[in-house]
Amino acid sequence: MEVKKILLTEDEMPRQWYNIAADMPTPLQPPLHPGTGQPIGPEDLAPIFPMNLIEQEVSTERWIDIPEPVLEVLSIWRPAPLVRAYALEKALDTPAKIYYKNESYSPPGSHKPNTAVAQAYFNKIAGTKRITTETGAGQWGSALSFAGAMFGIEIVVWMVKISYQQKPYRRLMMNTWGATCYASPSTQTEAGRKILEKDPDTPGSLGIAISEAVEAAVSDENSKYALGSVLNHVMTHQTIIGLEAQKQFEKVGDYPDIVIGCAGGGSNFAGLSFPFARDKIFGKDIKIIAVEPTSCPTMTRGPFAYDFGDTVQMTPLLPMHTLGHDFIPAPIHAGGLRYHGMAPMVSQLILDGIIEPRAVHQLETFEAGVTFARTEGIIAAPETNHAIAAVIQEAKKAKEEGKEKVILFNMSGHGLVDMAAYDAYFSGKLHDYELPEEEIERALRAIEPLPKPKVAAK
Amino acid sequence: MEVKKILLTEDEMPRQWYNIAADMPTPLQPPLHPGTGQPIGPEDLAPIFPMNLIEQEVSTERWIDIPEPVLEVLSIWRPAPLVRAYALEKALDTPAKIYYKNESYSPPGSHKPNTAVAQAYFNKIAGTKRITTETGAGQWGSALSFAGAMFGIEIVVWMVKISYQQKPYRRLMMNTWGATCYASPSTQTEAGRKILEKDPDTPGSLGIAISEAVEAAVSDENSKYALGSVLNHVMTHQTIIGLEAQKQFEKVGDYPDIVIGCAGGGSNFAGLSFPFARDKIFGKDIKIIAVEPTSCPTMTRGPFAYDFGDTVQMTPLLPMHTLGHDFIPAPIHAGGLRYHGMAPMVSQLILDGIIEPRAVHQLETFEAGVTFARTEGIIAAPETNHAIAAVIQEAKKAKEEGKEKVILFNMSGHGLVDMAAYDAYFSGKLHDYELPEEEIERALRAIEPLPKPKVAAK
Repeated sequence: MEVKKILLTEDEMPRQWYNIAADMPTPLQPPLHPGTGQPIGPEDLAPIFPMNLIEQEVSTERWIDIPEPVLEVLSIWRPAPLVRAYALEKALDTPAKIYYKNESYSPPGSHKPNTAVAQAYFNKIAGTKRITTETGAGQWGSALSFAGAMFGIEIVVWMVKISYQQKPYRRLMMNTWGATCYASPSTQTEAGRKILEKDPDTPGSLGIAISEAVEAAVSDENSKYALGSVLNHVMTHQTIIGLEAQKQFEKVGDYPDIVIGCAGGGSNFAGLSFPFARDKIFGKDIKIIAVEPTSCPTMTRGPFAYDFGDTVQMTPLLPMHTLGHDFIPAPIHAGGLRYHGMAPMVSQLILDGIIEPRAVHQLETFEAGVTFARTEGIIAAPETNHAIAAVIQEAKKAKEEGKEKVILFNMSGHGLVDMAAYDAYFSGKLHDYELPEEEIERALRAIEPLPKPKVAAK
Repeated sequence: MEVKKILLTEDEMPRQWYNIAADMPTPLQPPLHPGTGQPIGPEDLAPIFPMNLIEQEVSTERWIDIPEPVLEVLSIWRPAPLVRAYALEKALDTPAKIYYKNESYSPPGSHKPNTAVAQAYFNKIAGTKRITTETGAGQWGSALSFAGAMFGIEIVVWMVKISYQQKPYRRLMMNTWGATCYASPSTQTEAGRKILEKDPDTPGSLGIAISEAVEAAVSDENSKYALGSVLNHVMTHQTIIGLEAQKQFEKVGDYPDIVIGCAGGGSNFAGLSFPFARDKIFGKDIKIIAVEPTSCPTMTRGPFAYDFGDTVQMTPLLPMHTLGHDFIPAPIHAGGLRYHGMAPMVSQLILDGIIEPRAVHQLETFEAGVTFARTEGIIAAPETNHAIAAVIQEAKKAKEEGKEKVILFNMSGHGLVDMAAYDAYFSGKLHDYELPEEEIERALRAIEPLPKPKVAAK
């Protein structure tokens, strides 16, 4: 019998996160204050984040210690197995060796708790009593709720109303972990009330939900706000994925030629790839591919520019690949990849040639997901299927070229709570979306008046 | 940091299943032909099961080899971790040590694939082209569909119509793994058509679904039928759970005083407990508790009697604890525990004093599940919450008595696809059900004319 899973024991868990800010070929440019256009400092972030997380956000220390209580909670499901996908290789008849990190064993079923647990802990020791956040389909809200339960810290989530109504499962997970979840817009905040007054039947939006969560945090001295992707400290917390993978490859004397992850805000992708990106920065020959949907082609068609992180223009301006903060992607079935921007760290590394972006079509992603389910047995999340589609592309290429490439990808979550998306696929309701150039140009006009980062767009 | 998870490598997986028929203090009594009242032989079962599984069903060999291809598929998620529930212990302030086997890492999220994989394999090598089965809420149907995909064998599932309509997620999992799932009653079978003719709007029942699946199997020479619980070979396949747990306890030099599992048909309970029951038979002092709902008190209030396995009286008569084949349990939210009978092996071991049955109330089970989710982090299936309720009872008792008991239970599945049940609990829609004695007496009248087993009811 061929051994599939390369395991680590809890004792072998990485004790430090990797902060790629220490090794980036071009240093990150600072976020700017939207009013003044000046770089913002830690104190500007203090109303919404605790100082220990702000320090991580701006840190250029290469290694950041993972506190014991964080490791203790992560060890509920970590270290995550590195799995050799023999059955998928066989089905593709490829000389490539395919490995995946299985991040679906966390209680909410995705990689999100890797940072949720860290953020809940650092808030706890900073004295925060309540963390507010927003969530779309609920992956992040459920992950933070789980983390809040583990440290006994109150979690309040504003969930986009249409998802709140149509996707009750993750909301119910939040409740089970003891969190409060409001449909956004809600009557709980000034922002919510204003919008409801104008349009009581609005389906809500992530932008509105962010406004509500931030307002709730800044208007209560015991509350802070948390974000599940995009920011530097979130990327850093996720690097435990890639650091584990490196230890696991060492055990079997292998090393990837190609590293692949799907990217919405960038966190699961960064988590797997940054430790390998470091090796690439120091000379290793690795292809690192960030995969996005063609319907939301932030990295492949959006410029590198300063833009708001949210649609309602409340956040600092971030230097990133963006389609413009008022870009509204088509309603594809991978909610986690429908974001107009990309993490500044990931964006900068694309500019520097360390990371290669790739866009894939929706139907190809579900086809890939079904192939994965019927070979490796696991039903992946629709977001994850984007990574799998690129893996299959690379495995087929390896076959054409007759090369034994080693491919690693992030199985960032299971799809058991996303079966409606598979239903839409099987019943022929899904389509591919190729955005007309005019639509992107139109969307990008929103960022024209904003300051420009030093590095020009590609 | 305290190490929570006791892991085994794939190389350490048990290579044989344990068949408790070899060690039972009282030998199992044979199933009877419903027409003749005579013991049935292997040849009577041949139209619906392949001979290799029939041999396992009637075997009294203590150890049965697990074929390599079965191990290979099981190793997608096995060996399953044995986890020390430190956080739960702390919350209960108990001197008891609590351990659980985490069976939720299988692709469909429960213990069911342990036997589904074995059954799909043995059918495959016996030349079966298509396996038919029935499913209620879909746990078994999805597990068999997964297994079918792994061995390239066609799976057709009849799913109770009301569940088919109201619980689409597991049906969609079946489709994703390539299986066909019909709402039962369907127009695919004579049995289904007859019922639809009389009552086109019937919500269906497990009994009807069984009829359809069996008819489809016997009317096609390339098809066989599969069952997810109750039968001896199913219990045997599940013993990999307990055999792993024994190896894991050996690693940490510990051993359970109390072993607990929930029991509907009996398979997850048997899987964990039978290897420990063997130790008890040979003299170890262990308390082994099978937990059922008070609303379906098969073991605690049903006699040991010969009865049909199904409501439509098509199966052989099985010697078991039963409430009568036409008993209709209240609509509680643990579908897997709403069965009128109990596996003959489990039933006989209750009579012999090896296993102790216990009934718990529904509200207590959800309260236990919420405690588990907020301490250990994992949202368990409603069925599993029955085991957790009994664990908490025993842990509290250990505290009262000041005894450091070692408690082991089976975390038989996660509840991420069962969140509607938690919703009903949180919104106060659930109730406890204590069955009036008359109702049980009424239900038991259905089995009065049937032959009686040699061992009288307790």
